[in-house]
Amino acid sequence: MTLDGRQARLATLCVTVGLDLRVGQELIVSAPIEAQPFVGHVAAAAYRAGASLVTCLYEDPALIRARFDHGTDEALDRAAGWLSDGVAAAYADGAARLFVYGPYPDLLTGVAPERIGRMHAAIAAASAAEGAYTADLRVNWCAVPFVTRSWARMVYPALPIAEATATLWDDVFEVVRLTSSDPLAAWRDHLDVLEARCRTLQALDLGALHFVGGGTDLMVGLADGHQWVGGRSYAANGALPVCNFPTEEVFTCPHRDRVEGRLAASRPLALGGTVIDGLVVTFRGGAAERIEAREGREMLEGLISGDAGARRLAEVGLVPCSSPVARKDVLFYNTLLDENAASHVAFGQSYSACIEAGRDPDAAGANTSALHIDCMIGHDAMDVDGILKGGGRRPIMRAGDFALD
Amino acid sequence: MTLDGRQARLATLCVTVGLDLRVGQELIVSAPIEAQPFVGHVAAAAYRAGASLVTCLYEDPALIRARFDHGTDEALDRAAGWLSDGVAAAYADGAARLFVYGPYPDLLTGVAPERIGRMHAAIAAASAAEGAYTADLRVNWCAVPFVTRSWARMVYPALPIAEATATLWDDVFEVVRLTSSDPLAAWRDHLDVLEARCRTLQALDLGALHFVGGGTDLMVGLADGHQWVGGRSYAANGALPVCNFPTEEVFTCPHRDRVEGRLAASRPLALGGTVIDGLVVTFRGGAAERIEAREGREMLEGLISGDAGARRLAEVGLVPCSSPVARKDVLFYNTLLDENAASHVAFGQSYSACIEAGRDPDAAGANTSALHIDCMIGHDAMDVDGILKGGGRRPIMRAGDFALD
Ligand SMILES: [Zn+2]
Ligand SMILES: [Zn+2]
Ligand SMILES: [Zn+2]
Ligand SMILES: [Zn+2]
Repeated sequence: MTLDGRQARLATLCVTVGLDLRVGQELIVSAPIEAQPFVGHVAAAAYRAGASLVTCLYEDPALIRARFDHGTDEALDRAAGWLSDGVAAAYADGAARLFVYGPYPDLLTGVAPERIGRMHAAIAAASAAEGAYTADLRVNWCAVPFVTRSWARMVYPALPIAEATATLWDDVFEVVRLTSSDPLAAWRDHLDVLEARCRTLQALDLGALHFVGGGTDLMVGLADGHQWVGGRSYAANGALPVCNFPTEEVFTCPHRDRVEGRLAASRPLALGGTVIDGLVVTFRGGAAERIEAREGREMLEGLISGDAGARRLAEVGLVPCSSPVARKDVLFYNTLLDENAASHVAFGQSYSACIEAGRDPDAAGANTSALHIDCMIGHDAMDVDGILKGGGRRPIMRAGDFALD
Repeated sequence: MTLDGRQARLATLCVTVGLDLRVGQELIVSAPIEAQPFVGHVAAAAYRAGASLVTCLYEDPALIRARFDHGTDEALDRAAGWLSDGVAAAYADGAARLFVYGPYPDLLTGVAPERIGRMHAAIAAASAAEGAYTADLRVNWCAVPFVTRSWARMVYPALPIAEATATLWDDVFEVVRLTSSDPLAAWRDHLDVLEARCRTLQALDLGALHFVGGGTDLMVGLADGHQWVGGRSYAANGALPVCNFPTEEVFTCPHRDRVEGRLAASRPLALGGTVIDGLVVTFRGGAAERIEAREGREMLEGLISGDAGARRLAEVGLVPCSSPVARKDVLFYNTLLDENAASHVAFGQSYSACIEAGRDPDAAGANTSALHIDCMIGHDAMDVDGILKGGGRRPIMRAGDFALD
């Protein structure tokens, strides 16, 4: 099938399985300009599914670069809060959101990190209201990767650009199960598996997870009333979106004070254009006490030192080595994919969906931060035990794959 | 100079002369996706001029078409009021606006006019608050033409598309005075001429304008306290924008009840994809009593019959035959250019700037309507007399050019 044909199928899958778009619902898409043909397919699919209006907020990387090249430093404190507030108003009025996520890893080459940080801080402050709608699942939303030339160049630097782009698209189509003969059925089966896994883990009512293997020996205590989440989400408007395309994980909330031991990252971490490689973190009483890395340590330290909550864990996610993303064994420099390649923990902000409804997340041990940084620890020599509240152990994963039933 | 180089110069001219952008001001651009390279130049110029933030709302014609091809009729009643309200909030906070106007005349071929009208009605209702900011000059704004392939194909159907585009760009650069050796000085001189012309006409304190020639014999009574406007505008924020690029006219407000006689259009009118050719309108007591045309009469009748105010005049504009747009003698199917090709009148909504401040526009005779339809009447055999309030006559134009001093 042509690239365009496959993009059309992906668009339909995003609208139906991803967004679970409701008849009459408005849809806001954000996408890089490069994604225009894909967005056209999304709009067609959304209107066919009964959308009342599809609006795309196109992102132009050249305008961001122009700002750093020609603008003043004070200008970086300004963000388009009026646009973000507009989106929040649309959410309040029932709109769904599709994030077409096409990264530009080389966009800000040579720009001082302080200036980039200053821009991001302004954007974060101006878009808090908008972000809360998706974070709290008040609306149905979905994020799907889009292959930009910039991203393809980073993942496959040795290939000519056309080939790099085609190869990365092949990767993406494979991990979103579009290469299956019946993608819709494949997705339904897959989501059912994830949801069954959540139910099993929930029924175990674990006190902690113990990760052992490949330099990691980490005890991750779980928050009180933690909920296992995976597959479809439950949006407040009644839709059942799959917020991340692809999604391979089941995840829950650690207790911010109950993490002990040593974590050795199994894959490099891509953070704002920098790569952190060979990361080893030692925890005591929940906090990252010592951070070591072969490469990029200062970047991570710099990021988390400004935010007390960023030193503690927010998420623990389990992904089997047999997942399509893991099998590819490619570093995608894109959390949307890399997070689904291996079991992981995340520093920073926890997800409200991972704490039982009605319970105070803070009292339950959930963590708070302006950041959320995923760190892959899973690999094919990793064992994970569940620590029962009574003290017993249950095998959860063996040699990187689930050992539940 | 390359097309890119000339676009960069046009961008700088739009930001400085067009917008008169203030240091620290935010800028909102709207533009078709096709204009991305031009918008990049605009952003660079704006940041160099001290802009705090440049945001472009890219328009994707494919999404509009997808709506008509795949959406329901009820969906057409929905408009992105949340986005328009966001822009209004940015205006309230001091933002300037650049409209990069690239038409797609063939976009909606085959779509029923009722469906298009239904969409436009919803958009008009949802964007009233936003529109008032620019109409009332509460912020500095500017509209500049951009050559889309669709537009170039319409203007030069006999040329291969690349040549059509290049030729139309040559036209645009010429009429915006970019072919001058010093465009900035050329603009300053030109704006001074327009403003001097306004002062002269204002000092005459005319009661009416009498157009005679080429089938036209039209007496246009002017509103009480009418103001002649042209060149730079006075925005409420202190900026002096030139709202239309190019601009060749000086214009004022007719009295809605004091128009008598016969108007013969000197150029075809392009209205929503249809062309109205050979238009002749007879006025009595200010109202268009009889409308005739060789072609497209139903379209015009349909448009103005739903709106009582649309049968009366809102604007009278004087443009000499020696203006760069007039000299080109091309029908651009684009008001931004065609309006500057010839003296014209407009049906529908009048401009508040054309009535003395402090005076009630309605009592002064200004017209009200949801439409504004310009109709070219000037040509090189047109004489215009000014009718003094005491009854005498003064020659204003002779054989299509000004005869003022
Ligand atoms: Zn995760
Ligand atoms: Zn995460
Ligand atoms: Zn005019
Ligand atoms: Zn007009």
